[in-house]
Amino acid sequence: MKIADQRLEKLMRRKELDAILFWGLENIRYLCGFTGSDGALICAREGRIFLTDSRYTEQAKSEVAKAVVSQYRQKIPEIVRVLKTLRGRRIGFEAAAVNFESYRRLQERLPRVSFIPLSGEFSGLRAVKEAEEIVSLKKAVAIAAESFEETIPRVKPGSRETAIAEALECRFRRKGGEKPSFDTIVASGCRAALPHGAASEKKLAPGETVVIDFGSRFRGYHSDETKTLILGKPDAKTRRVYEVVRRAQEKAIQAVRPGVTGREIDAAARGMIQKAGLGKYFGHGTGHGVGLAIHEDPAISPKGKAAVEEGMVFTVEPGVYIPGWGGVRLEDMVRVTAAGCERLTYLSKEFKDNIL
Amino acid sequence: MKIADQRLEKLMRRKELDAILFWGLENIRYLCGFTGSDGALICAREGRIFLTDSRYTEQAKSEVAKAVVSQYRQKIPEIVRVLKTLRGRRIGFEAAAVNFESYRRLQERLPRVSFIPLSGEFSGLRAVKEAEEIVSLKKAVAIAAESFEETIPRVKPGSRETAIAEALECRFRRKGGEKPSFDTIVASGCRAALPHGAASEKKLAPGETVVIDFGSRFRGYHSDETKTLILGKPDAKTRRVYEVVRRAQEKAIQAVRPGVTGREIDAAARGMIQKAGLGKYFGHGTGHGVGLAIHEDPAISPKGKAAVEEGMVFTVEPGVYIPGWGGVRLEDMVRVTAAGCERLTYLSKEFKDNIL
Repeated sequence: MKIADQRLEKLMRRKELDAILFWGLENIRYLCGFTGSDGALICAREGRIFLTDSRYTEQAKSEVAKAVVSQYRQKIPEIVRVLKTLRGRRIGFEAAAVNFESYRRLQERLPRVSFIPLSGEFSGLRAVKEAEEIVSLKKAVAIAAESFEETIPRVKPGSRETAIAEALECRFRRKGGEKPSFDTIVASGCRAALPHGAASEKKLAPGETVVIDFGSRFRGYHSDETKTLILGKPDAKTRRVYEVVRRAQEKAIQAVRPGVTGREIDAAARGMIQKAGLGKYFGHGTGHGVGLAIHEDPAISPKGKAAVEEGMVFTVEPGVYIPGWGGVRLEDMVRVTAAGCERLTYLSKEFKDNIL
Repeated sequence: MKIADQRLEKLMRRKELDAILFWGLENIRYLCGFTGSDGALICAREGRIFLTDSRYTEQAKSEVAKAVVSQYRQKIPEIVRVLKTLRGRRIGFEAAAVNFESYRRLQERLPRVSFIPLSGEFSGLRAVKEAEEIVSLKKAVAIAAESFEETIPRVKPGSRETAIAEALECRFRRKGGEKPSFDTIVASGCRAALPHGAASEKKLAPGETVVIDFGSRFRGYHSDETKTLILGKPDAKTRRVYEVVRRAQEKAIQAVRPGVTGREIDAAARGMIQKAGLGKYFGHGTGHGVGLAIHEDPAISPKGKAAVEEGMVFTVEPGVYIPGWGGVRLEDMVRVTAAGCERLTYLSKEFKDNIL
């Protein structure tokens, strides 16, 4: 991750930091390769030290590159010990990952150290994906898509939402996925009005729409895709809402190219939905970066002030959710190219292809 | 959760707080019932307000009891708005769950408010389980145990560790488990020396020991159990190490009763392993509370100063990990009773029952 390494060096010079303390597992994995569930990484001018407990020492020794591995019994005291050894006076820390309690304990034990909260400084740290990251993302997408296609026969009236989620998730595993990217969403009929409706015991009924939002993780990288299926002959309203969402998604995808802000991509989708008079039924952002975390930079939403860059990967997922009626969401993952974008997810979002 | 409600009221009086801000999903679920992945709960003297975004508003309305549901577009500004309305001057917050960045943004926008970090004050908040929580825990245990028994035929030389994990996790799902409690650990042969060795591509070989640490979640409640299986005729060292760990576990379980500290229970297991000359191969604590979080209070470790109480549920899981050789861990979940404890997990940990 050469780009990230250079950014960190610059940041340390600019803020006159002696070291930066990383606490979030995604940044730790990104910067040193550790895949376990607890640890801390100290990037100092003199080098990097990765700290973990006895459960992970052997694993860390085989995984961690570019950092010395040190084992602790208690995390905070060991961080204090290392920082004392480094004699650092200005220590940056990942403010969005370190909880207040840990900050307080560190500051109490090192009263002379200035702990400098860093947050915006890391924005987009992992956003531009390198070639090997794209390979993992594409593999995660393929595991999920193949699983989805094999599961379609079970999406029929009488099936329970949970049974569909189970069938999908078991296939992820069999195809080499590490785990689902998130609790698989299967929301049918009026439950489709819940943008995050985890699969329930509800049975599918004829004529209903079924929103299925699913993803698999491969080598730490997440896929994220949403299909909306229609069980049998769709009525006029379903067709209309679906087509509005589909056009909104197309419009947003067409807007993607280097230099465009997340807010502008969001506005492309949002404008289309508003023009159709459905604006108040689209409450969430149009998309989010995806990689080692399921939600990361860039933000593709009204808050997305930053311009997207070549190599960034994010979702484009407008939706319309009408309480009491149901909903439609269509989601693809795209990678920004020099001139536009490449779709990483490949299952059809065309209306006619989604009628069962 | 009446006990918790009373504790919070007392805490607010004692610390002269106008409200407490909860941020961690487990405490939020425990206190108001919300099962989604983002939100904040403000417990004020005037009542409780649960805040979430549009993805979860409908869900929150159906799930949340004893709190008013309010929808936000942006979390921090909405918390600020609510706290302004309450005119609170002293606001406690969950210091182990609120990250430093969010704390800083709240404090900046509400400069006159004293935000009081609370952490130790919540210790053990969820530790004593009520009857309906025990029902969910027992169901989670049964889902995992039945799945384990059905998977045993696949635990044989030539099988990959990942295939065993997959088979287990698919069965959890089919039996109604929401998700695995954690990445299933299948660590065979010398990999068994990794206390947290997530399943790898390694194939099992004759004569090896296989540590399988597994659990399923049901209605938010986690099970956690570890079996160590031996593939074929065990050698003398395997038998010896296994019996040491088994006796250590028994000793710890026998030590459990109300009033005994976590540290004392830990010492019972640790002393036995040390007496056998294997002390340096047991690097982690003996156990941890388990419930809505996979790791929660009480701590059953050298750090566990608090006494356990009737109704608490925790694991007892000593292990011995010898680098280059392998390892053995045995883990059960127990519930503290008036006079001792009840084992919630029921699969046999006897040596002879674990030779395949």
